[in-house]
Amino acid sequence: MLQDKDWCLAPHNATGFLKTEKVAEHKVAGNISWTEYLHFRVPKRYGLINITDKVEEVLLRSGVQDGLCYIGAMHITAGIYVNDAEAGLLHDISRWIERLAPFGQNYDHHRTGEDNGDAHLKSYLTNHQIVVPVTRGAFDFGTWQQIFYAEFDGLRDKRVLVKVVGLGNS
Amino acid sequence: MLQDKDWCLAPHNATGFLKTEKVAEHKVAGNISWTEYLHFRVPKRYGLINITDKVEEVLLRSGVQDGLCYIGAMHITAGIYVNDAEAGLLHDISRWIERLAPFGQNYDHHRTGEDNGDAHLKSYLTNHQIVVPVTRGAFDFGTWQQIFYAEFDGLRDKRVLVKVVGLGNS
Amino acid sequence: MLQDKDWCLAPHNATGFLKTEKVAEHKVAGNISWTEYLHFRVPKRYGLINITDKVEEVLLRSGVQDGLCYIGAMHITAGIYVNDAEAGLLHDISRWIERLAPFGQNYDHHRTGEDNGDAHLKSYLTNHQIVVPVTRGAFDFGTWQQIFYAEFDGLRDKRVLVKVVGLGNS
Repeated sequence: MLQDKDWCLAPHNATGFLKTEKVAEHKVAGNISWTEYLHFRVPKRYGLINITDKVEEVLLRSGVQDGLCYIGAMHITAGIYVNDAEAGLLHDISRWIERLAPFGQNYDHHRTGEDNGDAHLKSYLTNHQIVVPVTRGAFDFGTWQQIFYAEFDGLRDKRVLVKVVGLGNS
Repeated sequence: MLQDKDWCLAPHNATGFLKTEKVAEHKVAGNISWTEYLHFRVPKRYGLINITDKVEEVLLRSGVQDGLCYIGAMHITAGIYVNDAEAGLLHDISRWIERLAPFGQNYDHHRTGEDNGDAHLKSYLTNHQIVVPVTRGAFDFGTWQQIFYAEFDGLRDKRVLVKVVGLGNS
Repeated sequence: MLQDKDWCLAPHNATGFLKTEKVAEHKVAGNISWTEYLHFRVPKRYGLINITDKVEEVLLRSGVQDGLCYIGAMHITAGIYVNDAEAGLLHDISRWIERLAPFGQNYDHHRTGEDNGDAHLKSYLTNHQIVVPVTRGAFDFGTWQQIFYAEFDGLRDKRVLVKVVGLGNS
């Protein structure tokens, strides 16, 4: 059973964020498609990391005024979700995920030499990827909505893909 | 443990729907991006509410013929999902959600004075947001697919964001 | 309780795939919207089927270079998800889904004559639908990401909708 000490809970900042990497940019007849990778190395094996600010910076660079922003993990041992940034809630979420998809040694996947079978299951409980609506150049969010990166196999370099598609100023 | 009486199960109509609010409209070179908020006040704390008709009306107003329709809760104590509208199934879903993410007093989140820790977890089991394909001006659905609003902290005003993006008649 | 023999686990090919059906095509001012249905008949009641190659063929036919690819089940007893194609992991996933949303006779939904109540719940644990980013005409995936069709009520004809939207060569 995981302990609280195994989790990096970062309700208000992008702990483990390394850099952003611009990948592609297309602009055709008022349409914009803009792609960046966010690079992370979370300092514990498990983490719930608020990345709202980092994704917002990508949105601003894209110039998209109205459209959709895709945010997805590029690994199958991680996830992306939208929830509240309250610190106690992050503890609740981490314990709940562990209860429903526990760390352990009894996974068939471990015959390959891996020990992260639980991480593959945990990723179903958050989301692997989300889409966030963009209106007037900003995330069209309610008061408490924040974007989180869920790391279930950390202490190594991982990437999150952000693609903003939609209409620019015209 | 919740009882059936705590749930508003509405397999065939949008119980608690108050109004729709137009938020934004952009049309550029054949592209349309159209945004409305659906306002709800579900008459019980928990609810599974069929909102297919309400979202369909937004789609028709948008004029989008081919594209994607984003539907997402603007609160982190609610969700959106696609499933069958059969009444017995709604009971099954409500009990299943309660079993995996139970109401209770032992959540850290409650130290803030809230008592809705379960609602934040329940939202992972449905989806927080979905995307529905639009073809020839209609939802491109199989026979039994319906769009539901899942309320886990009702008796108050909540919003659902609908954004339709795609190509219009041209 | 389901046994392993009830599951068709296909980590490397699209077992049960019948054909693809082109549904719609729109091209306006550099924008493309392209829709196909993939038809399946999975040879067991439950299945986890790698459909990456089949969806990739749709992407190539669409001509979209930069955008989003929606992939969704057209039934509410099936799902779509992204995960690793390792054979042991597929066993782990199948057992985990069964543990959290077990087959059984005690679902209210069965009063209609159906016996697939578990399938409706299982579909919440994978995803009903996903969106995959497309960059330079290919899925913008990490090393281990593969697209799977999750069948929870097989031995009958089912469909998966693939819609690719975005910018073409220009």
